[in-house]
Amino acid sequence: MVYELYYWPGAPGRGEPIRLLLEDAGAEYVDVCRGEGGVPKLLAALEGKLGGPKPLAPPVLKAGDLVLSQTATIMGWLAEQLGYVGSDEPSRLAARAAAQTIVDFWLECHDVHHPIATALYYHDQKPESARRAPFFRDQRLPKYLGHFEQLLAAGMPFSYIHLWLFDVIEGLRYAFPRTMAAFEPKIPLLVANHAAVAARPQIATYMGSPRRLPQSDKGLFRHYDELDAPA
Amino acid sequence: MVYELYYWPGAPGRGEPIRLLLEDAGAEYVDVCRGEGGVPKLLAALEGKLGGPKPLAPPVLKAGDLVLSQTATIMGWLAEQLGYVGSDEPSRLAARAAAQTIVDFWLECHDVHHPIATALYYHDQKPESARRAPFFRDQRLPKYLGHFEQLLAAGMPFSYIHLWLFDVIEGLRYAFPRTMAAFEPKIPLLVANHAAVAARPQIATYMGSPRRLPQSDKGLFRHYDELDAPA
Repeated sequence: MVYELYYWPGAPGRGEPIRLLLEDAGAEYVDVCRGEGGVPKLLAALEGKLGGPKPLAPPVLKAGDLVLSQTATIMGWLAEQLGYVGSDEPSRLAARAAAQTIVDFWLECHDVHHPIATALYYHDQKPESARRAPFFRDQRLPKYLGHFEQLLAAGMPFSYIHLWLFDVIEGLRYAFPRTMAAFEPKIPLLVANHAAVAARPQIATYMGSPRRLPQSDKGLFRHYDELDAPA
Repeated sequence: MVYELYYWPGAPGRGEPIRLLLEDAGAEYVDVCRGEGGVPKLLAALEGKLGGPKPLAPPVLKAGDLVLSQTATIMGWLAEQLGYVGSDEPSRLAARAAAQTIVDFWLECHDVHHPIATALYYHDQKPESARRAPFFRDQRLPKYLGHFEQLLAAGMPFSYIHLWLFDVIEGLRYAFPRTMAAFEPKIPLLVANHAAVAARPQIATYMGSPRRLPQSDKGLFRHYDELDAPA
């Protein structure tokens, strides 16, 4: 099986947890939209040309005849295929709830720089972003990261959620370096999980390779210095 | 099996698709937080007192020893138990992606009246809401509802998604009556699905019963006249 991943080529974004999972598992995959003619192939996938229900948005994963969309759905399914989640029902359902919670958090990470409309640029909604940012940094980020810390503290067995949480910490460190430097002492298990995932041989190789896209201001996690905690 | 649902008693909200599914199936359940001492019981559930991983937020469903959170996770699991989704993998995965998409849309339906912070009241973020609302009405609502219309057009077999989409239309008609009156001719299958679900005997009985909570300004879907399309 060669998996085909369709996602925007401008930032790690919502495709990244899928790449991490495929890379860690040593699975064969093509990051379709990185190659020549990539974006037209992505647009064709969004038109439903791969078959299956027409997706709302990337990422899309083609796995043989199966065409999946939504990161959480793709991750849950791939994890079952590749052995990245327990085979018992409570483990799978707890992981699915955690995945949903990460997606909710993602949306808040995005909307801190887009509080009015995705159709506008950040510089067209800067006053509203400046007003939203302190609530994000002081209330929402601690609430979500505190929740994930508790999942780890409760002994959640290693799964795709651990890889995904590595990416959350990567993204937040890039976007909100001062906020994270101050907050990380409160989330030792998430920090340790980040280090442990980074040290996995396949992940270390991937992160140092050109297959890993750099963070950018096209992504979910964006660094606008004025939205971070005051220096 | 008597299911126990834990959710805020002030509006249908994120608990409602679960109620619709349990009601339609004729399943035995207790809407725990509607009874005496309900809110303390909800708070205990959020403290993790029911067992399982500590939930971030309601709804929580207790099913025997299994404790689930996140509406999409609960719905996917309950649908498998109660026969509200196909038993083949593509059907289940397509339904899961659709559920995730509804949850994404929910968040946008919420943030139109809370673009800055959930910690603030609507009246503390009215200028930002007024700016966000036209993007929501003219771009996001058509994008999401158009996507759901296409899922129905593609012949998605009857499932928990159909019950959930009934609730989406209910909520939007309450919150944005003028927008919906103008837009509904473009989504005939969603409108027909709403009517078909409303006519299901168990749903009709439920909707006329005191078990159905009224929409309110404590909910996900709120009616603030100034956020709807101009009269």
